[in-house]
Amino acid sequence: MLPIVKGLLAGERRALAKAISIVDNDDPESREIIKQIFSKTGKAKTVGFTGPGGAGKSSLVGKLIPECQALGYRVAVLAVDPTSPITGGAILGDRVRMQNNLDDEKVFMRSMASRGAVGGVSKSLRNAIRILDAAGYGLILVESVGAGQLEVEISRVVDLTTVVFTPHTGDNVQAVKAGLTEIGDMYVVNKSDLEGAPALYNTILDLIGDTERKPAVFKVSAKTGKGVRELAKSIDRLLKEKNINYKERERNMLESELRDMVLSMVEKKASLMLADNGKYLEFVEKLAKKEIDPYAAADELAAGLFR
Amino acid sequence: MLPIVKGLLAGERRALAKAISIVDNDDPESREIIKQIFSKTGKAKTVGFTGPGGAGKSSLVGKLIPECQALGYRVAVLAVDPTSPITGGAILGDRVRMQNNLDDEKVFMRSMASRGAVGGVSKSLRNAIRILDAAGYGLILVESVGAGQLEVEISRVVDLTTVVFTPHTGDNVQAVKAGLTEIGDMYVVNKSDLEGAPALYNTILDLIGDTERKPAVFKVSAKTGKGVRELAKSIDRLLKEKNINYKERERNMLESELRDMVLSMVEKKASLMLADNGKYLEFVEKLAKKEIDPYAAADELAAGLFR
Repeated sequence: MLPIVKGLLAGERRALAKAISIVDNDDPESREIIKQIFSKTGKAKTVGFTGPGGAGKSSLVGKLIPECQALGYRVAVLAVDPTSPITGGAILGDRVRMQNNLDDEKVFMRSMASRGAVGGVSKSLRNAIRILDAAGYGLILVESVGAGQLEVEISRVVDLTTVVFTPHTGDNVQAVKAGLTEIGDMYVVNKSDLEGAPALYNTILDLIGDTERKPAVFKVSAKTGKGVRELAKSIDRLLKEKNINYKERERNMLESELRDMVLSMVEKKASLMLADNGKYLEFVEKLAKKEIDPYAAADELAAGLFR
Repeated sequence: MLPIVKGLLAGERRALAKAISIVDNDDPESREIIKQIFSKTGKAKTVGFTGPGGAGKSSLVGKLIPECQALGYRVAVLAVDPTSPITGGAILGDRVRMQNNLDDEKVFMRSMASRGAVGGVSKSLRNAIRILDAAGYGLILVESVGAGQLEVEISRVVDLTTVVFTPHTGDNVQAVKAGLTEIGDMYVVNKSDLEGAPALYNTILDLIGDTERKPAVFKVSAKTGKGVRELAKSIDRLLKEKNINYKERERNMLESELRDMVLSMVEKKASLMLADNGKYLEFVEKLAKKEIDPYAAADELAAGLFR
């Protein structure tokens, strides 16, 4: 067993942080780490928090931590921000911790950068969740700092997705309508003490009214803490209620993860085989001379790669 | 030969428009069209116009058309806008034509939507250019309506890239700095009669000063037409000067196109083979029971696909 795996299974925070960085960067070691911990995973539940920038997701997550701990969960937080130049978790951790007076020993927080292809975020996130899961964290809150495609991607990796809006970002509701009304298991109007909150609440009800899963809408104020306990209790209830469907959901997630991994390996291998294939450059020459067309050339090269 | 190919080679505008829609949508027929016209391509030159929204790219392209025609080119325009819900070319064509009193018979204009993956734009655009090339258009102006990654992608497909800024969008210069200073063969300050134009001109000179290709910077006003003739002449000169490097550039473009096509075929085929592979679902079951880890499962499935 790798020392880092031994460390993270023993709950050593430095080993945990390092292991998450390794999977976040898709370093070669990540493969061996996941292989060694995989059989110890499958217990943690995950909740994603998504929504427009400025909706107060970090503050809300900060207030939810002690409420979820009070319900018996060992809580970890992952913030996914592919646009951030900062890797590692100092900034997120410090910010949330300072605002909420949290006990450093009881919660683990980490930012992930997961740059690169869209599919790269899923891969890093799934593996970071596995590491926290193996280390004994039972509830992992995933804050998405990105937007659009990323949020849909994250919603496919977590068990429950919470979409957060505020009256301030009310004009964004229409803009994000198409994407975000499809992915939410719960909707939250944060800063519910502000003017415009009731109107926003009704707008959200309208937007999600036609969707099949009929998600609940909550009013909270991360600032005053109002409504946060009720939200934590609903998350707990939903996680337990939906338990029966999790097996199928997990199977679907594993299926798509396995497909992604195989296709990415196949692409890498095909790319290497092409570079080594004399015919490839020969066909480029023929293309330049118009002696063959691109489809015919690609067909022949692709056919040569498979059994 | 397909009737549509016969039509477009004869310069029939309806056949041309339909063929471009077919490659834009990546319809099955596009393969056969490209196969049939490929040997007739390779004469057209392409110039991309990119830059922040509101920089006046359409107006500039509109003014450039008669100037380039005066220099002897048969001109076509492609506007690439993956965010547009409108396919087909009515809007672009009408707008540019009305503003510039252009002769419908002498210029061909078309919008492309090219939705989907980033690589999809390159593929559609390369094939649309081939169709116009085979139809006898010697100069194809490509207007990019998107931003960021898309502009870099388009710059790899065209022979020359022109980056357009205006004083109005001056605050965007810093934002787009990283991307756009790398791709331009020419820079244009449009609306050069506005206050702020000289400062913008100097900023651009500063930004591109360190780049290897030392592109020229032009001041034009698409509104009054000032400087547009000089820009057209510079484009013409650059296209002719750079001619000697085009063979290598074309080879590089063909090489990356061929790689993209092969990898996309390989991915499609691998995806189908996976769906048919009993082992795939067996491994998903084993993963769910933690009897195997994802890397071991993916390795074995991927290995089974190759010769």
